[in-house]
Amino acid sequence: MSSFWNHNISISVFGESHGPAIGVVIDNLPPGEPLDVDAIREFMARRAPKSDGTTTSRRENDMPNIMSGYLNGRTTGTPLAAFINNTDTHSQDYGNISRLARPGHADYTGALRYRGFNDVRGGGHFSGRLTAPIVFAGAVCGQILERRGIYTGTHIAQVHNIKDTMFNPCNIDRDLIINLRHKIFPAISDKKGQRMRDDILLARQSLDSVGGVVECAVTNVPAGIGSPMFDGLENTISSLVFGIPAVKGIEFGAGFEAAKMLGSQNNDEFYVDERGHVLTKTNNHGGILGGISSGMPIIFRVAFKPTPSIAQPQETIDYSAMTNETLVIKGRHDPCVAVRAVPVVEAAANIAVLSHMLDYPNF
Amino acid sequence: MSSFWNHNISISVFGESHGPAIGVVIDNLPPGEPLDVDAIREFMARRAPKSDGTTTSRRENDMPNIMSGYLNGRTTGTPLAAFINNTDTHSQDYGNISRLARPGHADYTGALRYRGFNDVRGGGHFSGRLTAPIVFAGAVCGQILERRGIYTGTHIAQVHNIKDTMFNPCNIDRDLIINLRHKIFPAISDKKGQRMRDDILLARQSLDSVGGVVECAVTNVPAGIGSPMFDGLENTISSLVFGIPAVKGIEFGAGFEAAKMLGSQNNDEFYVDERGHVLTKTNNHGGILGGISSGMPIIFRVAFKPTPSIAQPQETIDYSAMTNETLVIKGRHDPCVAVRAVPVVEAAANIAVLSHMLDYPNF
Amino acid sequence: MSSFWNHNISISVFGESHGPAIGVVIDNLPPGEPLDVDAIREFMARRAPKSDGTTTSRRENDMPNIMSGYLNGRTTGTPLAAFINNTDTHSQDYGNISRLARPGHADYTGALRYRGFNDVRGGGHFSGRLTAPIVFAGAVCGQILERRGIYTGTHIAQVHNIKDTMFNPCNIDRDLIINLRHKIFPAISDKKGQRMRDDILLARQSLDSVGGVVECAVTNVPAGIGSPMFDGLENTISSLVFGIPAVKGIEFGAGFEAAKMLGSQNNDEFYVDERGHVLTKTNNHGGILGGISSGMPIIFRVAFKPTPSIAQPQETIDYSAMTNETLVIKGRHDPCVAVRAVPVVEAAANIAVLSHMLDYPNF
Amino acid sequence: MSSFWNHNISISVFGESHGPAIGVVIDNLPPGEPLDVDAIREFMARRAPKSDGTTTSRRENDMPNIMSGYLNGRTTGTPLAAFINNTDTHSQDYGNISRLARPGHADYTGALRYRGFNDVRGGGHFSGRLTAPIVFAGAVCGQILERRGIYTGTHIAQVHNIKDTMFNPCNIDRDLIINLRHKIFPAISDKKGQRMRDDILLARQSLDSVGGVVECAVTNVPAGIGSPMFDGLENTISSLVFGIPAVKGIEFGAGFEAAKMLGSQNNDEFYVDERGHVLTKTNNHGGILGGISSGMPIIFRVAFKPTPSIAQPQETIDYSAMTNETLVIKGRHDPCVAVRAVPVVEAAANIAVLSHMLDYPNF
Repeated sequence: MSSFWNHNISISVFGESHGPAIGVVIDNLPPGEPLDVDAIREFMARRAPKSDGTTTSRRENDMPNIMSGYLNGRTTGTPLAAFINNTDTHSQDYGNISRLARPGHADYTGALRYRGFNDVRGGGHFSGRLTAPIVFAGAVCGQILERRGIYTGTHIAQVHNIKDTMFNPCNIDRDLIINLRHKIFPAISDKKGQRMRDDILLARQSLDSVGGVVECAVTNVPAGIGSPMFDGLENTISSLVFGIPAVKGIEFGAGFEAAKMLGSQNNDEFYVDERGHVLTKTNNHGGILGGISSGMPIIFRVAFKPTPSIAQPQETIDYSAMTNETLVIKGRHDPCVAVRAVPVVEAAANIAVLSHMLDYPNF
Repeated sequence: MSSFWNHNISISVFGESHGPAIGVVIDNLPPGEPLDVDAIREFMARRAPKSDGTTTSRRENDMPNIMSGYLNGRTTGTPLAAFINNTDTHSQDYGNISRLARPGHADYTGALRYRGFNDVRGGGHFSGRLTAPIVFAGAVCGQILERRGIYTGTHIAQVHNIKDTMFNPCNIDRDLIINLRHKIFPAISDKKGQRMRDDILLARQSLDSVGGVVECAVTNVPAGIGSPMFDGLENTISSLVFGIPAVKGIEFGAGFEAAKMLGSQNNDEFYVDERGHVLTKTNNHGGILGGISSGMPIIFRVAFKPTPSIAQPQETIDYSAMTNETLVIKGRHDPCVAVRAVPVVEAAANIAVLSHMLDYPNF
Repeated sequence: MSSFWNHNISISVFGESHGPAIGVVIDNLPPGEPLDVDAIREFMARRAPKSDGTTTSRRENDMPNIMSGYLNGRTTGTPLAAFINNTDTHSQDYGNISRLARPGHADYTGALRYRGFNDVRGGGHFSGRLTAPIVFAGAVCGQILERRGIYTGTHIAQVHNIKDTMFNPCNIDRDLIINLRHKIFPAISDKKGQRMRDDILLARQSLDSVGGVVECAVTNVPAGIGSPMFDGLENTISSLVFGIPAVKGIEFGAGFEAAKMLGSQNNDEFYVDERGHVLTKTNNHGGILGGISSGMPIIFRVAFKPTPSIAQPQETIDYSAMTNETLVIKGRHDPCVAVRAVPVVEAAANIAVLSHMLDYPNF
Repeated sequence: MSSFWNHNISISVFGESHGPAIGVVIDNLPPGEPLDVDAIREFMARRAPKSDGTTTSRRENDMPNIMSGYLNGRTTGTPLAAFINNTDTHSQDYGNISRLARPGHADYTGALRYRGFNDVRGGGHFSGRLTAPIVFAGAVCGQILERRGIYTGTHIAQVHNIKDTMFNPCNIDRDLIINLRHKIFPAISDKKGQRMRDDILLARQSLDSVGGVVECAVTNVPAGIGSPMFDGLENTISSLVFGIPAVKGIEFGAGFEAAKMLGSQNNDEFYVDERGHVLTKTNNHGGILGGISSGMPIIFRVAFKPTPSIAQPQETIDYSAMTNETLVIKGRHDPCVAVRAVPVVEAAANIAVLSHMLDYPNF
């Protein structure tokens, strides 16, 4: 089902960008887990538009209203439902999208899929706004994981041709993770971060947009969760990550670089350290072998295409009249969708890892 | 479930590398589809070891025995079960793997996941041999798709640092696809293919292995199949592709390159051609927008790590004794797992696309 | 997942009896289906408490707020979410249920399942009130079915020892179905209905409650939907019906009576009528053979136990202190849960049948 | 999916009555569970035709061949696949069934569902023979449950109008359960059993068949497994039981009798016994409240219709020519399908309960 996800935990996302509300139902959360609603809001605020010009100027004050599954500060174990009212919608900005297919958007494919009946205002159900409920779910799952010592860190690893310092795949400091969450622009290197921001502002000035890469690491996942074949950690994480609009690729550990390596370079040798812990000397495997966690940090990177909504005139079709036309997109758009995607990727990781952790003995 | 996959079509894979047999059950295939069993065997033979030194010398004569779901040359619509007997197994080659974790393999993680009870001979259920049932399923699905004009082509796009000519993402000739299937080494450019082979043989001589990339294209998929969020074509394809051992990444269309682009570069402008068909001038979106097919070729690339089994001594652990040890792997192994993965990736694409096609009106 | 149901259509139910709201998300509805919201409310009003004494006096004015998936009077095809605010809650009536297990209720089993963290006010997520979202979903599905000529009729077939006239399993008039929907007490025979009502009122006066049976028929379902084994119509209908509180049994066609029959009595002989339609002379099979519709009316009956909340003192335990205690239940309760279950059973049938119809060619 | 079942444990059943083999793949069994293959065969032998005239005279020597997932006498945790070769098939007996719809069978509905391509010899995939793989799976699950003290007992509770002594729902002796497994005709009362056998033989002599009821009890299930709404024990058990051919109804605890009761009669009062165990004085709830186990025996009854294959001439249609015809069924058939269904129902209970037990902490 398109907006249902089910893997131990079930998630049902609903809503359209310009409808009355969007939201999510999360089922099979463990009961009795304390949830800090203020911390959930802070997590969601990381997805909010920023004032530094790197994102849309649209205000999205995403206040989740919890409708069920939460009592006396804890999860009940029954479905946790939250909805977020849509407020700052400017439907008039989107007057012409019902007829002209915005290149890079799902206007045309969505019209075919839903035979023209889907809500196209602001992208409707295809809108990036639908990541807010995912972030809510990920914030909830993250709190449950952190109580077990599992932390997920995420940064904007690349914008256009500018790369951030990457995570040390063998050793990711919890302070770094926490620090990234409090940065307005979540790059590990502030210097690279500033260059990325400049690049984004330049693109915006040029009526253009840029792509980017988000890197995510999950630390302290115990070895032995996940399964071979179709229930591996890669499968589960991917199944959520490809639910984020604009994602075009995912790689784990060395990823596409591994394709360029020799086995003697890529293989991560095991060792037992003085505490008796099993580790690997390198972490090209990204913490996953045969679909199963190795105990090393789980590392993956997600490629985001440039925001397709750009202010330049573009050739396209009127998919109703089936004529060739020129389109000028108005409205307020993020010049780099990857920036606000950072907490969304982190949310997806949290949901996927928690869902596998529920199979872990004595979770 | 680890070895069950379910998305309109259901697939259940079973077996261990050195057990009596491996196989697959496929449910919900459309009834009445003619199946050419010889063509299935030819498809499966593409996964077989080759005599040119680029693969293992182990013989794997994968003859599928169809047990059900097939009558009078056609699918019945009830479960199609096939098994493949294991024959050429040399268990004595694997004498030491029950105690020493082969770097890059799932020995250690599998032992934790299955509490030491899984069959480790030849990799057991984690073996690349388990891709044979997937290839069987993909061959079946491919025949059903081809009857509707949908063809899937696959080539070895990269080995180590050597890249093949890539598919023209806007226009993939059926002859090229068919031609690739008959090549011993399925590269588009024979010259590049020869260089890749030389590189693989060099790695083998150096007691090493190399990684690679496989590119896959599905042509003539009608626009409008797939769904947003968690039921998009990317999600479905990924859910199968990450079931193939050694896969570390997947990208669709421009993929990670899109992250380096401007929106004005990456956006694929639509146009209506003289026949009234909707096309895009470029195909950076890889035939998928919002999870839904656009009618352009579906293009994706899969990164394979180098075969972890190399003949050089490697440092590792005895995960039973929890001691540091040196391992020398014997046995016959593919020096580049990506080569034999070509039909497996093609099979995964066939399964994923057919499963979405079943939702297509008037399929 | 406990409150997620998935079979072509996905349904996610959330909420607690005394929380802020209950609701449902429905995914994969066909796009472009006109929905008459007033008719949905009328359907839901059939579940509302009645003024004739046969139900609780609690007011439940179930007004659904549609949050998404509905535009310009039609389904969009994306998730349809609806919320129902909880209003007339008297939590003080339930002061003692957090400690004493009400016999026949899920207080004790729910406390174990959710480790004491679930909301127990008014039954929480176990409350019969959670059938309101199911009725909403069933009303939506029913409208989509009726547009294809498929009608579902339901009546209160038995209360205590009093049986209503049963449906003629071979021929169910549409007028009868419509007529039943407008009856305050939906029995086919008004005379039997009056006797049932008297019996219910007598039980209430005796501080007691009574059980009942609901019969449901779905007419004009085309032959050939459903599947053998685990995806039959019986499996699907049951999977929903056992989601209704107080259900203790289900039977299709002749059901448990078939167990008392000879094959020569039970077998339904086929014939082709003058129009060329295939029919059976009798309908002991309840319109389903091998899990697949035969074209005859689908008939099933659902057994409801008596409302467990009765006003008489009952022996029970304090499951916190683990002591034996006497319980007196206060609050307003239905003396016969089967009465208000009539539209719930009808809703379950609608959801199940529509989910199978989506596989029907040219639906 | 029709022949896939998935609830923690996944089961994939394949095969046709007259094909080369039938079988099952079981995924997600816990690793390291000892399996006694002889005991599995003994369990399967309970489904075999008997020599006393109450079943078909067809020999079905169901020897399962385990292909995977089993090593050194234990489950590995990876998919357990088993095949059963079809041997004693007399296809010539079924010469006329490809054209004439046998009343009570799925010939006509199956032909529509599979557009005429399904294998109809011996019932094909709809055959009762397909219960053999379910029995295999249930035998495996039963051994895993019994190691935790959970025993499942089953008896033929009714044949035609003759009822066996029922289980004492509050107290089911393990010796009784074991004893039933060794009876040729598994009735609790041998006297009633003899009357049932006589009745079955009489039906056979009359070229007729009879229906029956099977009662099943699962003892020592810990309180707290299962979930409300759609993931209750009733839903799970039903989803499997309606996969057994000829089942027309299921009821839990008092079942349809509960519908005739007053609340004061039906409610099961709780008490704490001297050992501190929570029990109920009666067990009308059948060990399940709100979908969750109460710790009392789980009790359910399944109604089987009479075997539809009877030797008397029957009116029916030729569904190819669409003409009215008279049919005389030849071949060897069970005069009472409920008799051989006893181990099948027990198997379904084992699978369902084990699948819920896997969620139980410290299983």
